Amino acid sequence: MTSPDRRARALDALRAQTIELPSWAFGNSGTRFKVFGAPGVARDPWEKIADAAQVHRYTGVAPRVSLHIPWDRVEDYAALGAFAAEQGVAIGAINSNLFQDDEYRLGSLTHADRAVRDRAIAHHAECVEVMRATGSTDLKLWLPDGTNYAGQDDLRARQDRLADSLQQIYALLDPEHRLLVEYKIYEPYFYAMDIPDWGTSLVHCLALGDQAQVVLDTGHHAPSTNIEFIVMQLLRVGRLGAFDFNSRNYGDDDLIVGAADPFQLFRIMNEIVEADALGRAGDGTAGVNFMLDQCHNIEPKIPGQIRSVTNVQEATAKALLVDRDALHTAQQAGDVLGAHAALTDAFATDVRPLLAELRESAGLHPDPNAAYAASGHQDQLAADRVGGTQASWGA
Amino acid sequence: MTSPDRRARALDALRAQTIELPSWAFGNSGTRFKVFGAPGVARDPWEKIADAAQVHRYTGVAPRVSLHIPWDRVEDYAALGAFAAEQGVAIGAINSNLFQDDEYRLGSLTHADRAVRDRAIAHHAECVEVMRATGSTDLKLWLPDGTNYAGQDDLRARQDRLADSLQQIYALLDPEHRLLVEYKIYEPYFYAMDIPDWGTSLVHCLALGDQAQVVLDTGHHAPSTNIEFIVMQLLRVGRLGAFDFNSRNYGDDDLIVGAADPFQLFRIMNEIVEADALGRAGDGTAGVNFMLDQCHNIEPKIPGQIRSVTNVQEATAKALLVDRDALHTAQQAGDVLGAHAALTDAFATDVRPLLAELRESAGLHPDPNAAYAASGHQDQLAADRVGGTQASWGA
Amino acid sequence: MTSPDRRARALDALRAQTIELPSWAFGNSGTRFKVFGAPGVARDPWEKIADAAQVHRYTGVAPRVSLHIPWDRVEDYAALGAFAAEQGVAIGAINSNLFQDDEYRLGSLTHADRAVRDRAIAHHAECVEVMRATGSTDLKLWLPDGTNYAGQDDLRARQDRLADSLQQIYALLDPEHRLLVEYKIYEPYFYAMDIPDWGTSLVHCLALGDQAQVVLDTGHHAPSTNIEFIVMQLLRVGRLGAFDFNSRNYGDDDLIVGAADPFQLFRIMNEIVEADALGRAGDGTAGVNFMLDQCHNIEPKIPGQIRSVTNVQEATAKALLVDRDALHTAQQAGDVLGAHAALTDAFATDVRPLLAELRESAGLHPDPNAAYAASGHQDQLAADRVGGTQASWGA
Amino acid sequence: MTSPDRRARALDALRAQTIELPSWAFGNSGTRFKVFGAPGVARDPWEKIADAAQVHRYTGVAPRVSLHIPWDRVEDYAALGAFAAEQGVAIGAINSNLFQDDEYRLGSLTHADRAVRDRAIAHHAECVEVMRATGSTDLKLWLPDGTNYAGQDDLRARQDRLADSLQQIYALLDPEHRLLVEYKIYEPYFYAMDIPDWGTSLVHCLALGDQAQVVLDTGHHAPSTNIEFIVMQLLRVGRLGAFDFNSRNYGDDDLIVGAADPFQLFRIMNEIVEADALGRAGDGTAGVNFMLDQCHNIEPKIPGQIRSVTNVQEATAKALLVDRDALHTAQQAGDVLGAHAALTDAFATDVRPLLAELRESAGLHPDPNAAYAASGHQDQLAADRVGGTQASWGA
Repeated sequence: MTSPDRRARALDALRAQTIELPSWAFGNSGTRFKVFGAPGVARDPWEKIADAAQVHRYTGVAPRVSLHIPWDRVEDYAALGAFAAEQGVAIGAINSNLFQDDEYRLGSLTHADRAVRDRAIAHHAECVEVMRATGSTDLKLWLPDGTNYAGQDDLRARQDRLADSLQQIYALLDPEHRLLVEYKIYEPYFYAMDIPDWGTSLVHCLALGDQAQVVLDTGHHAPSTNIEFIVMQLLRVGRLGAFDFNSRNYGDDDLIVGAADPFQLFRIMNEIVEADALGRAGDGTAGVNFMLDQCHNIEPKIPGQIRSVTNVQEATAKALLVDRDALHTAQQAGDVLGAHAALTDAFATDVRPLLAELRESAGLHPDPNAAYAASGHQDQLAADRVGGTQASWGA
Repeated sequence: MTSPDRRARALDALRAQTIELPSWAFGNSGTRFKVFGAPGVARDPWEKIADAAQVHRYTGVAPRVSLHIPWDRVEDYAALGAFAAEQGVAIGAINSNLFQDDEYRLGSLTHADRAVRDRAIAHHAECVEVMRATGSTDLKLWLPDGTNYAGQDDLRARQDRLADSLQQIYALLDPEHRLLVEYKIYEPYFYAMDIPDWGTSLVHCLALGDQAQVVLDTGHHAPSTNIEFIVMQLLRVGRLGAFDFNSRNYGDDDLIVGAADPFQLFRIMNEIVEADALGRAGDGTAGVNFMLDQCHNIEPKIPGQIRSVTNVQEATAKALLVDRDALHTAQQAGDVLGAHAALTDAFATDVRPLLAELRESAGLHPDPNAAYAASGHQDQLAADRVGGTQASWGA
Repeated sequence: MTSPDRRARALDALRAQTIELPSWAFGNSGTRFKVFGAPGVARDPWEKIADAAQVHRYTGVAPRVSLHIPWDRVEDYAALGAFAAEQGVAIGAINSNLFQDDEYRLGSLTHADRAVRDRAIAHHAECVEVMRATGSTDLKLWLPDGTNYAGQDDLRARQDRLADSLQQIYALLDPEHRLLVEYKIYEPYFYAMDIPDWGTSLVHCLALGDQAQVVLDTGHHAPSTNIEFIVMQLLRVGRLGAFDFNSRNYGDDDLIVGAADPFQLFRIMNEIVEADALGRAGDGTAGVNFMLDQCHNIEPKIPGQIRSVTNVQEATAKALLVDRDALHTAQQAGDVLGAHAALTDAFATDVRPLLAELRESAGLHPDPNAAYAASGHQDQLAADRVGGTQASWGA
Repeated sequence: MTSPDRRARALDALRAQTIELPSWAFGNSGTRFKVFGAPGVARDPWEKIADAAQVHRYTGVAPRVSLHIPWDRVEDYAALGAFAAEQGVAIGAINSNLFQDDEYRLGSLTHADRAVRDRAIAHHAECVEVMRATGSTDLKLWLPDGTNYAGQDDLRARQDRLADSLQQIYALLDPEHRLLVEYKIYEPYFYAMDIPDWGTSLVHCLALGDQAQVVLDTGHHAPSTNIEFIVMQLLRVGRLGAFDFNSRNYGDDDLIVGAADPFQLFRIMNEIVEADALGRAGDGTAGVNFMLDQCHNIEPKIPGQIRSVTNVQEATAKALLVDRDALHTAQQAGDVLGAHAALTDAFATDVRPLLAELRESAGLHPDPNAAYAASGHQDQLAADRVGGTQASWGA
């Protein structure tokens, strides 16, 4: 059974936990085959932020929204930030876009043509301006560049061009900014991505400096990769900047985090708790940013995000309930099954009552999914948001 | 060295080989992130057929074009067939579309709502009409249905609904028609596809009858699946209806066939040759239909298709050059390295001279890729096809 | 919350559940790199059965032990059966061995040499004799045959030889016997296994007759295969004979079932419960045999098996607690998140109290793992079993 | 067609190429299921070296033999080195063994118990002594340590203990020595290996210093990993120390290099040639050591090694024949298909005549596989090596 002390400490940690929502989760998404729309989907950045604020309203732990430029381009970012504040949330990481210009067919930061690279670098200057206008401190860069055919381009030359481009982007940062560099094994290119793995991301971050850190998207690995090991290693070398949480069974499926393999999410959060990395770093520097990055292709967006947040909370709560003394004692003793059981006992625990208590103590409904469903908000959106064009990856 | 007899027989077989082109390869395609256009891309079915005819003109072995309904919907299919004939090609398999209607969000032939299933079945009646109008004998059905989350729907009920829907479609066929049932492990759904593997496709074909056969798309398997084994097994049970050729490194990458792993393509063609299944079946019944199904996301379409055809030809030529007496003798003797070498010796052979001879004997340029590049046709298309909307998966 | 009725029905079903233990789990196992021994490991079939009986003593749901011939070869099988009965367990499936004879280097039932095939077939006659002597009704055949290099042997000829061999083995069966045919994607051969997938196993079972059924080993699939789908499909076509339970992260890791992905095990058991296939079939015919097949390379054997049994029980209990009315209603309504939640709510439930109640109602300790650890039995074995050679896969 | 200049330069490079053979390839190997023996297999290090020398005799490019301690432990290493010299070969890398002591069940360099770690470190002192006695300069360390169950041990603590152990081993090196650190995704442990990927290996090498470099075993990655990208990246950061060549379809299959995917081997060698890393580094420092690491489970050992060497030569020859001017021009121009074709044209070339010429110019038979088969040597070994115990991984 869970000791009262551990339970109390878990509640404290859960109270301090924050999860960042992606604005694009509130627009439509899909596959190359079809993007399905749904009544009430947000049509612009303001509506996306309003929707994100709903998620925060019901969960209490999602106080920031990541923006994606140009999808969230507005004339007045200060006004957008003020609107977010009114809604009870803040602007989080600024995501650049390197995949939707016609010029990027063969690459952006790695393109053989300097003019294309310069354009891609300049786009980050715009993003840094958005950061300054909104108070964001995280510039997130996912490099979609890659090649489809062996020989199509010189892999080494692309790395060298990439290093140069990243250096120029890094130079744009203010001292309190971070550059978060994501990796991905494949898609949208299918022979060689230019940042396919954490090793490559780390090599570039080390070359850049302390403000550069790695983003781990849980859907961006080869089958059977042990993700919690990478979490541990990046924490160990001080370079885990952020998560893009989602889940997958096959490719980069971008399903609701924790939906495909809740035990994996728990193991990831266990490495976070073990390294005391759940909150901001003790020295006041930025810690790990726990962000969602998902596609609600067939399910409704706001409920999908609420479910995602509660899934992360459940995994975190279980990780916090691990009896670490028992765990470490068994590990030291070489008691394989005992140590494994110390971990799985926490996973087997039903933490829904604990999270209900957490929410009620904060004045929230104990079950955010049910509360939102009962609110009638989704129907209201469908009635209100008539006409216009629903937001999607294209805009 | 290759014996003169084997070489002569190979030339005969290569002369008889045909490869079917997909109309949609001549429109734009891409990923969920971006679809890049290019100058001169076809804008309607007529232009797609004209482009396919170019591929046949330069290779001599691509005399049929698969249509996709509704992407290739026209008012007068007989006229389209006549146009194709003028261009020197014929209409091949008719592909139905079960993924682009808004109603299909949760399934088509497997949908819980009978009205949706009926609509999806009725679409196949339209396709059968197109077959009658164009002389096509193959109705190809790729079922994109599936679920994204465990529990989302009842897997067994979906199979039963599918079996019923397929039965109704099968009943639409004329005696000379075939129903070709494709399988795919994932995408566009990410938890469970309703026809995920050859076993499921076969189970349904067996229930339907002799006119139902399996389509093997080379990109639709789990990592490390031995595809040539499946080819062998489906041939053994008399149910290999067709290939959708392409190649992959990761997911369903839809790259040019033979580009990712030419040795795999050779091993596949080796099973075909070993089973004497390269041509139409000896009893006059339809044999294996060798079709391409690819996405030329970043490379030009017509050259991409020409390259695909020549890749299949090279793999076929190598398979035909295998010294089967030596191979079988070594196999019978348990000579592991000798038998392997009998196969790889053929793969190591440079068959480009043989194929050049084949083409020249048919009055073609020995190098179709170079000949097309030198023709100026691509520039002509870019100059001619100004305005309008380029074809893509959406239309 | 779980309704009292559902809880009561779950207890009934759990009371009727049985799990079969493999004798070889009580001997040593390891990798090609090293087999580690441990004090007290069983040295012969009698000791293995005694150890298995311990697992049944503490869990109450493991009343059968699978034998493996020749590892469990004894002079008097009737005596072995009687000894098992004394210990409180019965003899379950008889497993043949087709991989340890020097003659099997290039295959057993598929070997090009009829003499080798005949020897492998004759081995099954011995196994059937063991079945008759012990009252076992399941003959389990895992075919380890395969090839390491493309071309090494003729894939089709191997299938035909296999079909012939299986037919001869099938002819040995008594009417109440079943032939359970397992499949495996790879290992011990690394190019093409001769029964690599459920489709191939099914093709052979269909050719053999109703007494032939498929065995699904949860570790024998390609990465990212949806196993519960296969469970559903085999149940649907009436050919799921048995499970070999274990868990994997990479290859055929043979870890404790439920240790790597407890949600997957739950989903598998959910398909079993959904199809009402947990117990013997209602018509009195044999149902699905739930067997373990694992390697306790580094953990102690008896505790490893107890943990395996309790993991299966926990997954079963959760599957039984699914609110199927709510699930089906949400599925019919197309409520993606609601249906998913109906499933995951059961998974999130802590079923340890329910299982404790189940055990106490049967006069057992509520926590079999703890009870066995406290019993001192393991130390007693280490003290008693001095000298001799510990059992392993070799003997 | 290949230009005469390019052909001449290719011949020069092929003349300078060396491939290192593993002593253990000449002993028996197998799977956890069975190790098959064969007549004439070597029984001790002397016979293994004699067998390796045969491979060099027929190929002319395999002048070194890696040793594995303790499998190749002898009383007098200087005598072993002298024997090798007499046979025409030299001692190459010294491989340590961290997986066969009973104490290593839970780890070696990462073990929680300092005494076990000290023992594992001390083993490397022995290896360094062997290096001094034999003139070897490469200490190769494959860490088999890992865990089977989540929670079994503290992943981070194991990294820290590993870093400390590696530091102590590094301190044992002479200035001309290198420490080559290998990585592997799984096996013999199945939850988390302690050096699972190139990133982890690199992190440790960077912490150690310039004498530490990464070993890339081509069979040690997750499915669909792009290996040539890793080759490029490790060359780029100056840390590619060596290859362990073999090939795989599924796990760490350890098949003959180039047998499973010859195009992949070609792409790897293409990165090597592109980076001018085929020979020793220009500054006199050690370059990449091209080693084989394979298991000839069912095929004869010496012919298996000869075939492996010729496969590497063929891939190298093709890489050397790439028209790099054409390749780079097409790459710069963004000519996707043209650049791809520049690569694949070289792959399509039959390089067997070139290699025959290379061998004949060195006084060798043009076909080493055929020449060895015709030599009668294998029969002679079978006749001579009667009695004794054949070498294997155990000794």
